[in-house]
This record gives sequence, C-alpha cells and structure tokens, in this order.
Amino acid sequence: MILRLSSLFVRTLREDPADAEVPSHRLLVRAGYIRRNAPGIYTWLPLGLRVLRKIENIVRDEMDAIGAQELLFPALLPREPYDATNRWTEYGDSIFRLQDRKGADYLLGPTHEEMFTLVVKDLYSSYKDLPLWIYQIQNKYRDEARPRAGILRGREFVMKDSYSFDIDDAGLDRSYQAHRDAYTRIFDRLGFDYVIVKAEAGAMGGSKSEEFLAKAAVGEDTYVRCNRCDYAANVEAVDSLAPSPVAYDDAPAAHAEQTPDTPTIDTLVDHLNERYPRDDRPWHAGDTLKNVVFSVRHPDGTTEALAIGIPGDREVDAKRLESKLGEGVVFEPFGEEDFAARPTLAKGYIGPGALGEKKPAGVRFLLDPRVVEGTRWVTGADVTGSHVLDLVAGRDFSGDGIIDVADVRDGDPCPNNDGGLLESARGIEMGHVFQLGRKYADALGLQVLDENGKLVTVTMGSYGIGPSRAVAAIAENTLDEIGLCWPREVAPADVHIVATGKDEAVFEAAEQLSQDLSARGLDVMYDDRKASPGVKFKDAELIGVPTIVTVGRGLVDGVFEVKDRRSGERTDVPVGDAVDHLVAVVRG
Amino acid sequence: MILRLSSLFVRTLREDPADAEVPSHRLLVRAGYIRRNAPGIYTWLPLGLRVLRKIENIVRDEMDAIGAQELLFPALLPREPYDATNRWTEYGDSIFRLQDRKGADYLLGPTHEEMFTLVVKDLYSSYKDLPLWIYQIQNKYRDEARPRAGILRGREFVMKDSYSFDIDDAGLDRSYQAHRDAYTRIFDRLGFDYVIVKAEAGAMGGSKSEEFLAKAAVGEDTYVRCNRCDYAANVEAVDSLAPSPVAYDDAPAAHAEQTPDTPTIDTLVDHLNERYPRDDRPWHAGDTLKNVVFSVRHPDGTTEALAIGIPGDREVDAKRLESKLGEGVVFEPFGEEDFAARPTLAKGYIGPGALGEKKPAGVRFLLDPRVVEGTRWVTGADVTGSHVLDLVAGRDFSGDGIIDVADVRDGDPCPNNDGGLLESARGIEMGHVFQLGRKYADALGLQVLDENGKLVTVTMGSYGIGPSRAVAAIAENTLDEIGLCWPREVAPADVHIVATGKDEAVFEAAEQLSQDLSARGLDVMYDDRKASPGVKFKDAELIGVPTIVTVGRGLVDGVFEVKDRRSGERTDVPVGDAVDHLVAVVRG
Repeated sequence: MILRLSSLFVRTLREDPADAEVPSHRLLVRAGYIRRNAPGIYTWLPLGLRVLRKIENIVRDEMDAIGAQELLFPALLPREPYDATNRWTEYGDSIFRLQDRKGADYLLGPTHEEMFTLVVKDLYSSYKDLPLWIYQIQNKYRDEARPRAGILRGREFVMKDSYSFDIDDAGLDRSYQAHRDAYTRIFDRLGFDYVIVKAEAGAMGGSKSEEFLAKAAVGEDTYVRCNRCDYAANVEAVDSLAPSPVAYDDAPAAHAEQTPDTPTIDTLVDHLNERYPRDDRPWHAGDTLKNVVFSVRHPDGTTEALAIGIPGDREVDAKRLESKLGEGVVFEPFGEEDFAARPTLAKGYIGPGALGEKKPAGVRFLLDPRVVEGTRWVTGADVTGSHVLDLVAGRDFSGDGIIDVADVRDGDPCPNNDGGLLESARGIEMGHVFQLGRKYADALGLQVLDENGKLVTVTMGSYGIGPSRAVAAIAENTLDEIGLCWPREVAPADVHIVATGKDEAVFEAAEQLSQDLSARGLDVMYDDRKASPGVKFKDAELIGVPTIVTVGRGLVDGVFEVKDRRSGERTDVPVGDAVDHLVAVVRG
Repeated sequence: MILRLSSLFVRTLREDPADAEVPSHRLLVRAGYIRRNAPGIYTWLPLGLRVLRKIENIVRDEMDAIGAQELLFPALLPREPYDATNRWTEYGDSIFRLQDRKGADYLLGPTHEEMFTLVVKDLYSSYKDLPLWIYQIQNKYRDEARPRAGILRGREFVMKDSYSFDIDDAGLDRSYQAHRDAYTRIFDRLGFDYVIVKAEAGAMGGSKSEEFLAKAAVGEDTYVRCNRCDYAANVEAVDSLAPSPVAYDDAPAAHAEQTPDTPTIDTLVDHLNERYPRDDRPWHAGDTLKNVVFSVRHPDGTTEALAIGIPGDREVDAKRLESKLGEGVVFEPFGEEDFAARPTLAKGYIGPGALGEKKPAGVRFLLDPRVVEGTRWVTGADVTGSHVLDLVAGRDFSGDGIIDVADVRDGDPCPNNDGGLLESARGIEMGHVFQLGRKYADALGLQVLDENGKLVTVTMGSYGIGPSRAVAAIAENTLDEIGLCWPREVAPADVHIVATGKDEAVFEAAEQLSQDLSARGLDVMYDDRKASPGVKFKDAELIGVPTIVTVGRGLVDGVFEVKDRRSGERTDVPVGDAVDHLVAVVRG
C-alpha cells in the first residue's frame, strides 16, 4: 500500500494549536492526525485513523487469541438498566443524557456493565455455559468537566471493554489472569514503556484490580514503585505501611495543656518545643494527630460528617479519599457554617474527645493506619487554645475504622516492609483489569443453575483498554523534540520515502522503490510532492514513521540513504539491496 | 478460524419475537444475530457482527480501490455547523439533540455533510488538491418516528458515507461515475438481487441521483421499471410522460355549466355523461382537472397555500409530493378552516379562475405535466354547483409551474416514450449516489483558488451505503421458509459442520475436518454440542451458512454429506477428498 503525500488528505501545520496543553496533542494536530471539533471531540484524519486501527487490531487479535468473543452494543442506551444499578443517578453530570421524540430517557454509554450483564442473563442459564468472555470495541461518551490534552481525555473516545463471567471465585481468578496475560502481550506489542500497578478496587465493590500505565510526565495518574522489590501501585491504591503496635505500659497519663494560639500544626509544634520541650528530641509535626473534618454527600442523597485523624506531617490526599469513598460521593472540608452547626467541634483544636467513642459531635471518625495501638499523640483537647499530650491510641481513644488517605511521598517505606522506599512517577492509564465480583449480577439478577440445580449469582471481571487514548499515550511516551516517533507496530506506515530534487530519475527510482516495497507487503508513505527537501524532511520527522529513506543526491552513486527516525542513524544502501534491506529492517 | 457452537455466544430461539414485523427481523433475532435494546436500537451478537463486518470490509475494499481515503468524524457533533446550513432546524424531531454540562447544544449526527465540507475547507485551498474523495464508516443516529423491522430502519445504524470534491461539473461527473462503478462492484460482491433506479434529486438542490435497491416485498421504497427499455426509477423520481401539445384552433370557447351536487370526480363524470353526453366517447375521470389545495409550512417557518392541478383520474402521491417539496417541508390538505379563510375557493368546484393568472385566492398553482398546451379540460368554475367545459390549457389558463406528483401506476407509459410500460415493485434502499452540487460549499464557504488565482466554490457529490441495513436487506432478499440463507461473501462462516450421534469417532472426524478447513483459511462453524441431530440440523438451517457438512452415519462408509443450504442438494464426499472438495465449493 502506498500513501502518496501529493494526494494524501493531510496538511502539516507549522504553528502549534492554541489549545494544546501537552506535546502529543500539539504534534498530533500539527502532523495532521486529528482535528478538534468541540472540547474533547475530535476527527480522526487518515493518518490518525491508521494508527487507531492498528492499535484496535492488536487488541482484537490478542482478545480473540484467548477465546474472547466480540459483539457490539449500541452507544445510545435506554435509561432503565442504569436505573436498576443506580448509575443513572450516580453518574451525575458526567454522562450525556437525552430524550427521544416521545420523551423517553436515554444516555450515551460511558461503560456497559449493565448491557453485558443483561445480555448474558438473556442468553445463558447454566454453569455449563461458563466461563464466558465477551468484548466490544466501541465509541464511549463521558461529559468530562475538563476534557484534556486532545484525545488523552476526550468526551467521545474508543474503548475495548471485556467482561468475564464465572460461576465462582476460582473461575474469576483464572479469567482475570488470562486477561492480564493478554493485556501484557498487547502492551508489549504496542512497543512503548509501560508499568503495571495495583489499583484501587474497594470503591466499586470488587477485589483485585491493576492498571496498565504509560510512563509520561504529563500523565494524570501518579504511581509509586519500590526501589527494592516489584511493588508498584497507583498512588490512590498505595497501602501505607502501618508500624507494629507499641507497648505503652510506662506511658504517662494523658494530660490537657494550655496551648493558646496554636490552631495549626506549625504553631502547635513551635509552642510545644518552647513550652514543653522534650529531652530526647524536639517535637515535630509527626508527633501530632490532625483531625480533618469533611462534609460528605452520598449518591443516594444522604449526607454525613466524616473526621479523619492523620499524623500532623501528612495531608489528606483528595484523590485517594475520592477513590476510597467511591464513585458519585462528593465531599468538601468543613466550612464556617458546618462548624457553627456543630459547636462541640473546636475548630483548630478538635480531638478524639469530641470524635471518639461517645460521639458527642455525631461525626464518623476514621484513623490513618499509622495510628496503631500504643502510639502516643498530641492532639486537640476540644477546647480552643488547648491540646492533650501523651494521648495513647487504643488506651485513650479509638476511631470507627481505618482509612488510608494520607498523601504518599517519595521515600515512604514500601508496604512489603522489605526496607525498600517508594519513588513516585506519573503515567497515563491505558488499561485496567478488575475483579468486579457480583455487584452488577446482583443488581440485575444474573444467576445460573449450578451443578446441583441451584441458582447461583455469577461473578464478573471487567477489562478495559482505551485505543484512542492509547494513540495519544504512545505518542506522548515516544515523541522527541522534532516530532512524533512511532513504535513500528502502530506507525501509520512502515517506511517514509522522500524524493528530493527535480531530477526525473529520482522520482522514477522513488516510485519504483515504493512499488517494490508495497509488493512485498510493506505500507509505504511516499513524498512525491514538488516541495523543497527541507519541507519534506521536516514533515517526515514530524509525522514520525520509523524508517525514512531519502532518494536523491546519492542516486548517482547508486545508493539510497536509510535513516532511523529515533536514533537518527543514517546508512547508505545500494539501490539493488534496498528492498531486501528495508524489508529486513521493518520485519526486524 | 473455528466457531464452536458449544462455546459460541449464541442461542437460537424457537419462538418469533413479538415485535418482529418482517421475516428478516424475525430470523435475525431467532438465529441469534441481533438483540433489541430499545425501539430501533440493537445489539450485534457475534454472528451478526461477523456479517456486518464482512459487509463493511467489502465496502471499504472497493472504496480504497478507487482511491477514496477513510477518516472518522465524531458522532457527537456541535450545533454550530448545522445552524449554518439551517439543518438544526430543518431536521425537526428526527434528530437526537442534547446539551452538555455547560448547556452547549449538540446533536448525534444523522449525516455529516457539514463536517466533510468543513474539514476540506480546513485543510485544502487550491484546485491542485482536487478531486478529493473521502469517506467514513460510522454509527449514525435518527430519531425515526416509526423505527421499523429491526435493523432495517434503526435509530442507531452504521453508514458508509463518502463525499467527492471537485472544481467543476465535469469533475463531479467523473467522481460520480467512479463511485457509481464502485457501488456496482460492491453490490455485485454482496451477492444478492438489486436494482439501480433513478432517484429524486431536486429537493436537495443537486442534479443526478440514483439509488441501489435490494428487491424485497417488505421494502419501503416503490420503484418502477420499463418492460421494454432499461428505465428504472424510484416512484418518487418517475418523470411522467407528458403528451405532445395539441392543436386547439377548432376548440370551442370555454363555457360554464350548471353541475349541481358534483363535488367529487365520480359525481361530476356521471353528471357529464347524463347531461352533456359526448358523441365519440363517454366522459371519464381523465377528462377532468382536479385542483387539490394544500397548506404548506417551510422549514424557515413561512407558510403558503399550494394548489396542484392533476387529471381527475389521478391522486396526489404524498411521498412524491414530499420528495419534491424537500426535507423539512410539512404539508396537509386544506381543511374546513383553511377554506373558510379563503372564500374565493369554492370547495369541490375550484378552478383556474381562482387559482390562475390574477390569483384572486392568493394561492400558488402548479400543474401536472400532462396538462400541456392545447389539452381540453372540465374543471371547477369557482362557484358551487358549476364547472367549466372545454377549458384549454395555454389558451384559457396556465399555472405558476409544473409539479410531477400524481401517483404512478402499473401500465403507465415509460418516460422514454418507447412504447414500454412501467411495472412497479418494492425494494429496500441500500445505497445512494448523488450529485450534491454546491449547496453545502455555498453555505459553509468552501472555496479554493482556481488556475487563475480566482476563488471558486467547490462542487460535491455524496455517496452512501448502510452496512447495518444491508445485513437486514440481504437477509430479507435471500432467506427462505426454513431460515436465513446468506450469500457466500457475507455469511458468518464458510462451512457449517454438524457432528451427529454419540460416536467418539464422529466427533474426532468432525474436529479434524474443522481443523483442516481452518488451516486452509476457511471460517468453520462446528456444531460440537451434545444435542440431537434434529436440533442441530434445524439450527444449521436457521443460521444459514451456505454449505452444511454432516459428519455422522456416513462415516462408516467413509463419506461426509455435503449439503448446499440454498438448493438443498446433497452429495456424499469421500472423507479423503472432503477438504479439497469443500475448499473448491467455497472458493468457487
């Protein structure tokens, strides 16, 4: 196949698009891969569509290889199934809703759990039918508050979503592993730098969950890796290492002290070091327990106040809190009005006295995992201008449970407790494998008969990859300062041939080479335009086909110049050897 | 590739779905190809998706072969471009509209003329860039008032839409012909019975227009063919044969007569034969001119009264009128209130006196093409109980123009005036090629520089095929009384192998045959279920793979039975020859 630049529907741009925030977006627009139609809504021009389709085909290929079966749901969906799972409400503003001419409610599908569950319920009825793995590759829709970075976070985007259906947890484990393996093969084939990290699963009611992230400084996800073992997790899913319980037999009794004008951790620590100096070491923020109170609204409309006790040297990480509370839960820190409504809470001096067992303030109280039995804290005395010292967890106070939402920092100990330290980096989520469990099967009544003729609820796994986001993520992960630089398997062509000069013989030789390579099954981009060599080389570098062949000056010496787009390495190849040489380069 | 029925995600149904109106719908649901989610909204199960993809790939193949380039627009589109062409309004209730979280208006694209026009305007600027042929294969949306017959008229459906862009009309003619030829190849490959008919083009402002119809009794389109020449046209687009002008030198002067109680053509003709008998032949309905008045509302909100004068033996065909008036124009016959508002119009006795040149009634007056100069008519005298006789067209009255909207009948003369007669039949529109002209380029300002550096407006062609409708249309066109019966190129598999009995050897032989055929590149459906032969044969007939191989009783004699699904013809083929035999059958 030959793509001739004289007729290919592409125009490269010299100027960066005004709205481009990240390099991949800038280059995909400038190189003529995509065009913006509305915020988060893009047209795929021929070059972009070629890359998208190559990614889709790799995904399809590996899904088919494990025996998953492709089907295709509508994107325009009736409301009813989403009511049954309460997601019509839970999604809030983040889905597109519409009505038909008769006033019936529809949505544009953001994910299809309901549809997958219902079609299996419709067709299958016996354990003998399981396991079943089905998938689709389809346009999905989310009305993002902040569509971002071109196709990286679009409002219309392509997803491959698979679901597994099993009779029991052991089956789910096998289905999960098969999909995880297929995903690993997919990402290996895509040919760029990725990492598999543990992901938060709790909020959706499932158990095991991992994400495939493309490494990229512009990524929206932060993940950590251990510098010693293979632990890696999305920052939302990091389990903080809890210290062992501490003996507290010799701990003094808790005692409230006057600490005027110490509503912040910094002022408190200064005050402690000045008025209550310790012999062995100065007070520091980590000795204090900070109790942060949030106003929380659940998807069902109920509200509550939630206090979180964390060491004073940490902050509550909003993303970690969001992922722990789950989809559709909205929260914000207590404001003046909230405090006014609960006079028991002394702002700046809140302590377990108001939050703990007897709950005079009527607030749910969750503690950071580091607050283990026997640890000793300075914390609010529930009176303005006063703190309690030597308050011992498990002796003097306890919470209603644990919540692990403090910020994660470089240098934090690895939860595997092997002496390794965590290091953070950023990535783009490209895939997600997830043990969904029985949430949707329960809500929609997906049961089958087991071996004993008893109805049992099916357990499901959910496995997603975003091919359109992958185009941007791979671009972002592989580009360099002069342009896009595609991995071979997803490049819009195998070879980019540039004919330079005005000599007829040059164009004839370039045309012949294009045809010969095409005849050998290669996809050739051939720059047959009447343009200057400078323009053609710049375009070739911008478009990012991995191998660039120059047919020009060298022709009199009987050679073509073959350049590797990434390394920049150039080789003169005799005309007679060029086809075999290039086929070998492309096929590896 | 082997599709094993023991694990394939399919369940055949014995019962017809309650809402199925046509055979293809009934069978596609029963055989497990599609499932309904909402009116006009369907899920493609694996079998259905295979057929859909095969059709899409044939279409893509032939589009690529003529040098058309594929791209992909979003389905979720901003309102603005559709405002610029007024289609946001014109579409009325028939598109899905929605708003995003910021209140901005969007629609789900029903067709993409605006987007194609704008992307070319964005990228191209010179005549040197033309001709350009671009296309996409994509989900489209229409909020049909009456979604019908499953996927035959869905609300979410797949379209391949191409557009050509040319600098002049000669270029458009070449682009049109290339697409018409490609379509002919596509429909030939799809392997079913179709007809190419002239289509109505006027309403959309274009010129040449043809449709590709699948012959099917359940089709929504009626077309006619000449029994002598190759004339074929959608009934909406049939040009009625206008007689030659008639000499009227010896015609008597027009004279009004009393015709009490003759408000209908029948009563009038009876009255004429009784009171004003002719010597040569009796009066008949075709001697009278019937003036039918409509109240018309245009998309821009303006209204008018429109009278149509047609021979009394014809009716105004609402579909023909609709297609002549154009998209978004709404009309209904004058009611009592309308007549009350225009007392000049004597209901039942309306004539050119009130409608013609001086327009006392203020009504636009269009005439059937048969009302040529010199023809002599009996028509209303604009006074209740009175008609005019010997009213000569061109002498005594004229209209504001011609409109060809009378019903077309079997036996009408062919417009080619070759003595041939028209015969009607029904079909399903599957493709449309259309010279769109400059309507969208004008509205959206698509101009390029010509050879002389002058800006000229580009002329466009529009070419559509509906792959999802094609699944239903091909099914409808090819099914028989026992099930689906696919043409080879679109069948979900090449061969359907049925293993019968409980003998291990049978299943081993069937498995081996499946693998051998798969290794030769055939797609095999293999019924490896533990079910009765009766169930398996019924399913094979229902599913409709063109070749059915039975591995069973014959095995002891060393033969498989090969059956042609359409003809029912059976052949015993020796086991050793089976692979070659079947490859030959499939490859033709």
